[in-house]
Amino acid sequence: MSKFWSQVIRQIEPYVPGEQPQIAGLIKLNTNESPYPPSPEVAKAIDTDAIEQLRLYPDPNATELSQAVADYYQLDLGQVFMGNGSDEVLAQLFMAFLQGRGTLLYPDISYSFYPVYCQLFGVPSKTIALQNDFSLALADYQGEAAGIIFPNPNAPTGIGVALDEIEALLQARPDTLVVVDEAYIDFGGQSAASLVPRYDNLLVVQTFSKSRALAGMRVGFALGQRNLIEALERVKNSFNSYPLDRLAQRAATAAIKDESYFQRCCAKVIATRTRMSDALTELGFNVLPSQANFIFAKPPARITAEALAAQLRQQKILVRYFNQDRISDYLRISVGTDAEIDTLLRVIKGLLSDDR
Amino acid sequence: MSKFWSQVIRQIEPYVPGEQPQIAGLIKLNTNESPYPPSPEVAKAIDTDAIEQLRLYPDPNATELSQAVADYYQLDLGQVFMGNGSDEVLAQLFMAFLQGRGTLLYPDISYSFYPVYCQLFGVPSKTIALQNDFSLALADYQGEAAGIIFPNPNAPTGIGVALDEIEALLQARPDTLVVVDEAYIDFGGQSAASLVPRYDNLLVVQTFSKSRALAGMRVGFALGQRNLIEALERVKNSFNSYPLDRLAQRAATAAIKDESYFQRCCAKVIATRTRMSDALTELGFNVLPSQANFIFAKPPARITAEALAAQLRQQKILVRYFNQDRISDYLRISVGTDAEIDTLLRVIKGLLSDDR
Repeated sequence: MSKFWSQVIRQIEPYVPGEQPQIAGLIKLNTNESPYPPSPEVAKAIDTDAIEQLRLYPDPNATELSQAVADYYQLDLGQVFMGNGSDEVLAQLFMAFLQGRGTLLYPDISYSFYPVYCQLFGVPSKTIALQNDFSLALADYQGEAAGIIFPNPNAPTGIGVALDEIEALLQARPDTLVVVDEAYIDFGGQSAASLVPRYDNLLVVQTFSKSRALAGMRVGFALGQRNLIEALERVKNSFNSYPLDRLAQRAATAAIKDESYFQRCCAKVIATRTRMSDALTELGFNVLPSQANFIFAKPPARITAEALAAQLRQQKILVRYFNQDRISDYLRISVGTDAEIDTLLRVIKGLLSDDR
Repeated sequence: MSKFWSQVIRQIEPYVPGEQPQIAGLIKLNTNESPYPPSPEVAKAIDTDAIEQLRLYPDPNATELSQAVADYYQLDLGQVFMGNGSDEVLAQLFMAFLQGRGTLLYPDISYSFYPVYCQLFGVPSKTIALQNDFSLALADYQGEAAGIIFPNPNAPTGIGVALDEIEALLQARPDTLVVVDEAYIDFGGQSAASLVPRYDNLLVVQTFSKSRALAGMRVGFALGQRNLIEALERVKNSFNSYPLDRLAQRAATAAIKDESYFQRCCAKVIATRTRMSDALTELGFNVLPSQANFIFAKPPARITAEALAAQLRQQKILVRYFNQDRISDYLRISVGTDAEIDTLLRVIKGLLSDDR
């Protein structure tokens, strides 16, 4: 610490991202990346011309990409806001809509970046407990609040919320901003994007990091009515006018336009998820019903989640363990390729039998 | 405006970036981009492998790139902070060191993003007038302040500050954070990076957008003692853990390692700047002495700066005009290729004689 630090920086507990170790042969099931590479159209979009033009600033509004996203969701260009990953979009919406405006409600078990943003921007918050089965009951979101935010499907549980429940919340609380964080929506959930034209209190946040296989490219976006998007633009233009580089804009545009590749990858992830959930259940795990590209599962009684994570790590398999109330018995395991999951299952089987 | 907007977003006047129009055949001398493409090593670094790996998150700390920057400036890895363009670095240093800590001093004529950050983060500020010849006298920076920030060379004037004056300021004000914004340092200025090991109140901010020809890639950085860098890391990890994408990290690393290409491009820009300054002086312009990749010049009395900018625009040449106190008689003109500057000079000559 130094005399130059601001008060908020002295006190904050920053977010801890999942590890990104550079170990050869690692099976990386800890940060919910796509097991498949981005669309082949992405490589075509990053051509010699694009690289030569890197001397020039990018389009500050990422117009072509925003239009492609708008087209995909049948929205207008003015209903799309692009950011340098959905984390940046989340940070900026805290500045646009929450700072100094009241309390934020979010689930007790959810994305661990929300409380960090609350600290950073001085937003008071109240967590709402998930049900005992870890489902998210929006009817529980009562009381004075400037905003409500939740992931759908929720992370790290993988459990989704039905669209009609979200619509009921939007109707019940017209003066509260409802942010649906849909990082994992493409693996079986139903996006609230279709509700944007009807509700001025809805913001949908998505990312290209998961279903579009571009975690390495940092592209996220928000969908909402013009009024909300305009506020986000004002934050952006008061923070960093050019958040998306030229190659990120081109890559993401190519990715969202390649619908068939996207559908194939999502279908493969869903199929592998089913197979992996069934196999782990058979091995005695309690596997929560997932709509995401990961599963959340409690190992059988003979081994703790923490010990299993450590033992998997010794076998070069990374999964995510949260040493946190209510979920310290669970592991979050990303859906890998079929081969990766075969290895995972074989190793777990071995560890469980050694352990007897 | 909407009921959901926070107070600060209602009141702020966002930064207005220079235009990025998509017009064929345009001579773009309005945003100080490099007239030369990035190093050929950049294209090599963005290979098929790098694109395939876009499915994976980038290194959140951009270690290889940070090390290359540290090596370049003979600093330690822990003395380098990377961001998504130097604007993001500036925004984050406002959060780390200025928010809630006191007044910021900066020149009355300088980068127009500083007052925007002050508004966004509620930092009180006081501008210090440049001398009549537009030089920046650091001895004028007196009085209670948490921080002092200035570009060196200054923008849009192009005039540099000598390193010994900066060192005198660092010694005179050990409790004030001094931020030297060196976006244009490589075109003739002397970087304060060498002072980092000796002064705990110094932060140097640089960008890959100008001398490294990567404006389209969004890479900037800060250099400072560990204590300061650690505060910036805390902001970053409370805002967006992965600000630099994989390709940006690779491109910037390749660019900073190609020292000879960099030197050649800077030398060409400096040579063209001299030629362009001399020719405009001969045409009756008052050209300020520039250490940057642009010049700041006042046209001869027979035409106003505003009219000249408009007429150049009709001839598909973009320059930057600031309708602002003290400098509304001047134009900022980026140093282009020799061919671009030949065209500029020919067109200006024509306009001035038409105008007689």
